[in-house]
Amino acid sequence: MTEMQNPYLMFLGDVGDQLGAKTAQGIVDWRPEWCIGQMRLEGCKADLGIEDISIEDAVKAGAKTMVIGIVNSGGYLPKHWISKIVDAMHAGLDIASGLHIRLSSIPEIREAAAKTSRKLFDVRHPTEDLPTGKATPRSGKRLLAVGTDCSVGKMYTALAIEKEMKKRGMKVSFAATGQTGIFIAGQGISIDAVVADFISGAVEKLSPENDADHWDIIEGQGSLFHPSFAGVSLGLLHGAQADALVLCHEPTRTHMRGLPHQPLPNLKECMELNLLTAKLTNKHAKFVGISVNTSTLSVTEGDTYLASLEDEYNLPCVDAYRTGVASIVDGLT
Amino acid sequence: MTEMQNPYLMFLGDVGDQLGAKTAQGIVDWRPEWCIGQMRLEGCKADLGIEDISIEDAVKAGAKTMVIGIVNSGGYLPKHWISKIVDAMHAGLDIASGLHIRLSSIPEIREAAAKTSRKLFDVRHPTEDLPTGKATPRSGKRLLAVGTDCSVGKMYTALAIEKEMKKRGMKVSFAATGQTGIFIAGQGISIDAVVADFISGAVEKLSPENDADHWDIIEGQGSLFHPSFAGVSLGLLHGAQADALVLCHEPTRTHMRGLPHQPLPNLKECMELNLLTAKLTNKHAKFVGISVNTSTLSVTEGDTYLASLEDEYNLPCVDAYRTGVASIVDGLT
Repeated sequence: MTEMQNPYLMFLGDVGDQLGAKTAQGIVDWRPEWCIGQMRLEGCKADLGIEDISIEDAVKAGAKTMVIGIVNSGGYLPKHWISKIVDAMHAGLDIASGLHIRLSSIPEIREAAAKTSRKLFDVRHPTEDLPTGKATPRSGKRLLAVGTDCSVGKMYTALAIEKEMKKRGMKVSFAATGQTGIFIAGQGISIDAVVADFISGAVEKLSPENDADHWDIIEGQGSLFHPSFAGVSLGLLHGAQADALVLCHEPTRTHMRGLPHQPLPNLKECMELNLLTAKLTNKHAKFVGISVNTSTLSVTEGDTYLASLEDEYNLPCVDAYRTGVASIVDGLT
Repeated sequence: MTEMQNPYLMFLGDVGDQLGAKTAQGIVDWRPEWCIGQMRLEGCKADLGIEDISIEDAVKAGAKTMVIGIVNSGGYLPKHWISKIVDAMHAGLDIASGLHIRLSSIPEIREAAAKTSRKLFDVRHPTEDLPTGKATPRSGKRLLAVGTDCSVGKMYTALAIEKEMKKRGMKVSFAATGQTGIFIAGQGISIDAVVADFISGAVEKLSPENDADHWDIIEGQGSLFHPSFAGVSLGLLHGAQADALVLCHEPTRTHMRGLPHQPLPNLKECMELNLLTAKLTNKHAKFVGISVNTSTLSVTEGDTYLASLEDEYNLPCVDAYRTGVASIVDGLT
């Protein structure tokens, strides 16, 4: 895996709303020290709350990569962004994109990259050769965030645990499996975009053997109970050979994301199936906590809910944003 | 899915042993009426037991597609095969290949296809746009062959069930998910080669809604207990929304294929996990039989083993090759 160089210049183009800059915002939230400034074109409706800066000033301030952390309808690259991207390469910046379209599929960008010897990163598109999973036991410890559904806080929880462990001086890395996570880690593999045969092999590569007291905190994807994507989640679980699992949940979700007819699993069955299948590659796998996004509840309701979960499952139960994850990390040595 | 036109001319090139023609042999075994003849180059060490025939005579006899059902070391296409492939297109044949290398990546072949308007099929490489799985209940019935491991007879069992159902005048289709199966069905999707996000969606596309009394017999891949490929198997299971499952097993296997450290599951736990996960998309899923490859046992040992399984699981237990699958089909209406 090639690592993107930071600091980043955050390119927002003229994205139409704040939600379209969700990926960029995630990068600023978790790696503010890497984000030198934002560049917005006329009409841009998003704001990352950091300094507006030109390509030239960003380069002077040390920027190494211009990040296009934008979701736009259709996933294409607007024509009037192309010249800015070419300018950035001529000014000395690599380009990293989270768009569906590949940077290298655009002739002007491909040619400018060749001419300037700048690197292009398409984080949605794994390019490297991957092995199939081997399930060979490996040294080091691994924690995986799993979920009752998609978009229930798995990346957030993993990053919060990484941050807490760093604060305590523990040896820790964040292993990114999705596009926002990859920008935040500077490297990673979009696991849902690899060829099906290589899901677990990709995760083994992402979290290789390490010091016995080193933790890889692995970003989960999907859910074993999401019928669109459970294959990805299972391959991820097997490849992770996780020692520790954290279950992530959003308590007001009424159906699986995108599938109105598909009910949510209850937490108990979700933990049981994750544990049963995790043990195929690590028989010591266990749950070490539950992380709930309680933002749609009042503080009192949220606290009551977390307390009831602690009673039921006898595990640290947190809201990674509101209460922090210290109680989960307390149990990890 | 574009369908390959039959009859086929089977091209063996100068493959070095019979095992290298395993895919071609499977096609001849299951679709003898589609295989007009074989074309072998000097030094070919494989023989499909069918007539040797020239391109010209094959075309005269009605051949529509030349099939390269060969595994050669490295997966590349030997240079001296290329002119034969080009000749075949000029003679009017489409070309279908099971090699890793794409036909269209070879300039002479790509150009000849354009010039002659012949089609190129690379069955290992899905080319169509796939949807994500939706898990919407659909009409028609579906049977999926699942396994304790890879290469335990899932394709063979599925094809035997299709054949038995056809013999009985039932409405039935075979849904192919691997390269040999695709040649045999004339269409299909190499499920382990799709992008991970689309595993279940591909299977939904392969076995769409149908008449209430129509059976899709779906070829399984891998095993929920094979840590390299279980993600593929789970996505396949969810996409299949199978009403009926048949467990396939090879009783002398001592470890999961390719992974000497990985033990086989027992049949009971394998059936339990398949059933538990199948119910996510079809709560009426059930096992309807067990299909064992007893070829490494004596007939007596094999019969004793099958009888003991029938006692234990109260299901029809067969060797699809030796005893046939009639007792399984008896239970399917």
